[in-house]
Amino acid sequence: MRHDGRGAENLREIRITRQFLKHAEGAVLVEFGDTRVICTASVEESVPPFLRGKGSGWVTAEYAMLPRATHTRSSREAAKGKIGGRTHEIQRLIGRSLRAVTDLTLLGERSILIDCDVIQADGGTRTASITGAYVALVDAVTWLMDKGALSRLPLKEAVAAVSVGIVSGVPVLDLDYHEDSSAEVDMNIVMTSSDRFVEVQGTAEGTPFTVAEMDAMRNLAQKGIRQLFAIQNEVLGR
Amino acid sequence: MRHDGRGAENLREIRITRQFLKHAEGAVLVEFGDTRVICTASVEESVPPFLRGKGSGWVTAEYAMLPRATHTRSSREAAKGKIGGRTHEIQRLIGRSLRAVTDLTLLGERSILIDCDVIQADGGTRTASITGAYVALVDAVTWLMDKGALSRLPLKEAVAAVSVGIVSGVPVLDLDYHEDSSAEVDMNIVMTSSDRFVEVQGTAEGTPFTVAEMDAMRNLAQKGIRQLFAIQNEVLGR
Amino acid sequence: MRHDGRGAENLREIRITRQFLKHAEGAVLVEFGDTRVICTASVEESVPPFLRGKGSGWVTAEYAMLPRATHTRSSREAAKGKIGGRTHEIQRLIGRSLRAVTDLTLLGERSILIDCDVIQADGGTRTASITGAYVALVDAVTWLMDKGALSRLPLKEAVAAVSVGIVSGVPVLDLDYHEDSSAEVDMNIVMTSSDRFVEVQGTAEGTPFTVAEMDAMRNLAQKGIRQLFAIQNEVLGR
Amino acid sequence: MRHDGRGAENLREIRITRQFLKHAEGAVLVEFGDTRVICTASVEESVPPFLRGKGSGWVTAEYAMLPRATHTRSSREAAKGKIGGRTHEIQRLIGRSLRAVTDLTLLGERSILIDCDVIQADGGTRTASITGAYVALVDAVTWLMDKGALSRLPLKEAVAAVSVGIVSGVPVLDLDYHEDSSAEVDMNIVMTSSDRFVEVQGTAEGTPFTVAEMDAMRNLAQKGIRQLFAIQNEVLGR
Amino acid sequence: MRHDGRGAENLREIRITRQFLKHAEGAVLVEFGDTRVICTASVEESVPPFLRGKGSGWVTAEYAMLPRATHTRSSREAAKGKIGGRTHEIQRLIGRSLRAVTDLTLLGERSILIDCDVIQADGGTRTASITGAYVALVDAVTWLMDKGALSRLPLKEAVAAVSVGIVSGVPVLDLDYHEDSSAEVDMNIVMTSSDRFVEVQGTAEGTPFTVAEMDAMRNLAQKGIRQLFAIQNEVLGR
Amino acid sequence: MRHDGRGAENLREIRITRQFLKHAEGAVLVEFGDTRVICTASVEESVPPFLRGKGSGWVTAEYAMLPRATHTRSSREAAKGKIGGRTHEIQRLIGRSLRAVTDLTLLGERSILIDCDVIQADGGTRTASITGAYVALVDAVTWLMDKGALSRLPLKEAVAAVSVGIVSGVPVLDLDYHEDSSAEVDMNIVMTSSDRFVEVQGTAEGTPFTVAEMDAMRNLAQKGIRQLFAIQNEVLGR
Repeated sequence: MRHDGRGAENLREIRITRQFLKHAEGAVLVEFGDTRVICTASVEESVPPFLRGKGSGWVTAEYAMLPRATHTRSSREAAKGKIGGRTHEIQRLIGRSLRAVTDLTLLGERSILIDCDVIQADGGTRTASITGAYVALVDAVTWLMDKGALSRLPLKEAVAAVSVGIVSGVPVLDLDYHEDSSAEVDMNIVMTSSDRFVEVQGTAEGTPFTVAEMDAMRNLAQKGIRQLFAIQNEVLGR
Repeated sequence: MRHDGRGAENLREIRITRQFLKHAEGAVLVEFGDTRVICTASVEESVPPFLRGKGSGWVTAEYAMLPRATHTRSSREAAKGKIGGRTHEIQRLIGRSLRAVTDLTLLGERSILIDCDVIQADGGTRTASITGAYVALVDAVTWLMDKGALSRLPLKEAVAAVSVGIVSGVPVLDLDYHEDSSAEVDMNIVMTSSDRFVEVQGTAEGTPFTVAEMDAMRNLAQKGIRQLFAIQNEVLGR
Repeated sequence: MRHDGRGAENLREIRITRQFLKHAEGAVLVEFGDTRVICTASVEESVPPFLRGKGSGWVTAEYAMLPRATHTRSSREAAKGKIGGRTHEIQRLIGRSLRAVTDLTLLGERSILIDCDVIQADGGTRTASITGAYVALVDAVTWLMDKGALSRLPLKEAVAAVSVGIVSGVPVLDLDYHEDSSAEVDMNIVMTSSDRFVEVQGTAEGTPFTVAEMDAMRNLAQKGIRQLFAIQNEVLGR
Repeated sequence: MRHDGRGAENLREIRITRQFLKHAEGAVLVEFGDTRVICTASVEESVPPFLRGKGSGWVTAEYAMLPRATHTRSSREAAKGKIGGRTHEIQRLIGRSLRAVTDLTLLGERSILIDCDVIQADGGTRTASITGAYVALVDAVTWLMDKGALSRLPLKEAVAAVSVGIVSGVPVLDLDYHEDSSAEVDMNIVMTSSDRFVEVQGTAEGTPFTVAEMDAMRNLAQKGIRQLFAIQNEVLGR
Repeated sequence: MRHDGRGAENLREIRITRQFLKHAEGAVLVEFGDTRVICTASVEESVPPFLRGKGSGWVTAEYAMLPRATHTRSSREAAKGKIGGRTHEIQRLIGRSLRAVTDLTLLGERSILIDCDVIQADGGTRTASITGAYVALVDAVTWLMDKGALSRLPLKEAVAAVSVGIVSGVPVLDLDYHEDSSAEVDMNIVMTSSDRFVEVQGTAEGTPFTVAEMDAMRNLAQKGIRQLFAIQNEVLGR
Repeated sequence: MRHDGRGAENLREIRITRQFLKHAEGAVLVEFGDTRVICTASVEESVPPFLRGKGSGWVTAEYAMLPRATHTRSSREAAKGKIGGRTHEIQRLIGRSLRAVTDLTLLGERSILIDCDVIQADGGTRTASITGAYVALVDAVTWLMDKGALSRLPLKEAVAAVSVGIVSGVPVLDLDYHEDSSAEVDMNIVMTSSDRFVEVQGTAEGTPFTVAEMDAMRNLAQKGIRQLFAIQNEVLGR
């Protein structure tokens, strides 16, 4: 039994709210327990310089936290004048995860910019971001289809993510901040709806981990992510 | 009759939600129609260098917009590596407005950092920020009193703000984005509950304005701000 | 009687020197007492990206202080690598004030860049800057007319500015640094020669101010600015 | 058979040269085929602010590439004025990998700064960096022991890293640039000499990967890393 | 005969005005023909970290140009967010030149910050800066002596500088902008009043130069600098 | 006799290794004793904006040191977010020196970017850089000729550089770090193979220097640079 009453294999309560903001083509509030992230998808009719004239679109992501999303206030990256290493790492992960399920050629020479802004952090902000951003991405490409800019959905399958870890020697699913800060191992896994991996990022915070532990975490993650796909499908009315 | 059905003297629907986030000492969601701003107040047990050892506290503010708070996505100031002029102007205004009603000596050598993060913009983000931030500030200093760090409330009176302007020749209260973008004059007024002015910032966007027009706008603002005080009091349970 | 012998309604000694530097199309030294600002106007045959191809010109301003314009040396913004909030606020004010009297369509697709560099500061640097920059702007557009690039003067009327404030309970005109640092209220007013307002920015530094006090300051400013227009006209040989 | 004649399970030629530079406490040139990285370890008698007075040391890393380490010249991060996301990601990975095998308490309140500068890049720069940096770290802590600052070696075990991937459907070890740029999956694995994992970072560049593929890559990596430990031991004279 | 009527060995008209600004401890306007530079010397009762507790003072310099000091407007380094290479080069030269004649031990643990701000540029801004800054430095240390902080003048001798060059094959003294932009060789020479060199910086802009040409320029510079010492002495009332 | 056994007129051991790295068009390791610098020359088929369409090429340089090239670790300029004054000064010097011997018109509208990265510093890094960069430049333009992009070698003559100084009153050639840090005068001289000067930069670190001392240093430099030309020629197989 975990400190919040969950079993090792349980997700926190997951909520995905579409149309959370009115201006963006896709705008989702995703909640993994007390972790709350606003994910928007913005369509831009241009691509970065390295793709110009190549017939391919682009999906990229930015990630940030409100200063007081956390227990103690952290200073704004805008005020510091530079983006920190952790932010870079996370926004690159989100971008790669979404591109893995997007058919960039079908998307055409346009970009979809994903913004993940954490308004409240309680562990798992990057996995919640990926899971919510996928729904925002679906809404944005559907908006493109509805206005006739696309004839086919440029998404190959769904993508979702969850964290797993080893806490007090036990593999657990979907760590909250309390668990995360004392975990021996922390692993983020991104999978597609065909049950394959897009990203696996495991880090031994304290003790290195064995093959058996890695497999146990991987199994937990697989089960959790299948539930996330069900929730995504439900909120998308599929 | 205005484009959204309001009369010239009407505020938009105003909503103030306390305890919107769980970590901050004060955390308010303020809504002026479709303008939505998260205002947090964070207590820090230190003061800026220029105040050290002087027995005075400090209140300061930072302001930002989510990239997709607006109709078209604007790039992050963190990504650009610097804070723009408009942001600087607004966060200085919010800070001065709150300091004007705070007894900094009573606050003691500690700081309250106000963060105003616009999640959806539809005109009047700076005045909504000030109005909501005051409530977050009350919650933060009440938290200090509750834990025994302060014996008296270090607030002299309440503060709130509203925009007024001249649109198609007519003075109107609380402009939304649609009105703001075509206004001849745009004025932001910050007042205290004793009916006095803290800040008056009027700008002729197109045609310069007369003394009579300034007085008409000032009167509209006064009436609107009195209603904001009533809403603040109600939400604070006074 | 004020600390320097002036009455409440008196400006300091105002001097405007044209052709102070030889390279700029307009180059003025403006002095409000001991406050001395070099204002240059530079013509550029291009406009910012957002105006390209729209048949409109642009007027913008930058503001800075020499490190030792002030009592104690302040560090250079170039050395700090970023422009501070106060600088941003002032240069935006100067730019808006000059655009308010410029017919940007008549100016054609070109820009006039105003540089206001304070070489000695003694209060009122932003109002001196606006008053002097107008003269530099006249010289720059006259230069354009003289070389045949413009057939009509693209200026609708004149603009000037002055500070007013409440010092020891008394409304006074054109505060110097000594008065400014102890003022209860500080207000900067920008007016056109048709006696209308372009900008009104009043701030309660200590105690909030009443409608009556605002009106008293506004009247003082109006009288002072009329004198500034007379001085501008004289120096321009009108 | 791979394009350079290696079998799927072969490392490139690995060379580790100690004392490559004369000033640093540890200074290693590590070569994985044509990938060449200078790894230095610098001892500093201080720790970052968050560790002061806590009786713990610190190990951290910085990573950079010479502009012409690559096929086409890339611009310097110093000239751009900011460190890119990829650099951040790599230097954080190197730092975590080395801390995982260091007993920070035994190290005492001092820091070891690892610098990994790629002078020639041909794939696998981050794994070569970790493998070489470990040797530089051993030299630096040995230097501390030799001068009597430490009585015991503050290293729990050895650490090394290798990349694996799937190229044309086949799992291969230690990809060079040519393979890396066409790989379907790219995985970096960091292990300790007790055969456990410190970091596992797998990314599907094109097609997502299965559990079976992940296991195949993991096995390849394990074998490769055991060879790296043998090479480290040999060069360290163990 | 040169384009402005001077002979090869003539300086332009040199003017040095003391007490040009009221706040700084030393404040000089120096003019070499149309080149005009404001040089201030500010006393600070601290030294940079590397000198703390070592019983030595410090003299350093910053250099900048107003945007419209030049024929066409150059953008502000503050707006660009960084100081350019040319500026760095010049301010380091000015600092070294003044330290060469200052007895830093006699100065005590305090700093003198020299600011050279070019308000009008017509060639030779760095040499005019050094020549004027020396006078500002004398005024600042005299101010320290007058208030009793120093008992002896911490200056070993005077310093001044001039440019020489080869224009159309002829060595000439004190080049203006017109000459400078077509010179084959440009050399800046800084000397002390004991007729010795502090800095010699010669650059072949087009054709490399011979030993004989270098000697000719050196002789011209020596003669010019002796005249600058006479002017400095006169303005200082010696 | 000097501390390392050299006579006053001796260079340290000079080594120049071509093809040190495989990607760059020119890639040289230059060693002046323990000073080791990697110099690469990269060809780019474009020129800076100010040269576009003018039929002229460009040669420019960047310079950096590895953090642990020095006795104590210095922080990376990329991490600090800006390039320091010393770096600017040196890279401008290297660029000017190489342009002085390049026929930019013959080079055509392309650029050659020189990167000088000091991997070990022991005095004279800028003069070693220039001497090595010339060889890298020869290799890059030869590469252009070999692929038929140039029909004639766009180099007018060779260039090399050495430092001279006055140490304990004696003029010496090619100072190492130990001598450099105690030198009274430090002079860097850049010459061409026609025995003429491109750059002369002398600085009195302590005592100003006389004409006689300057001449003695100049003679030493001339002799040393002639030896450097012989070494360049030998390594280039001329």
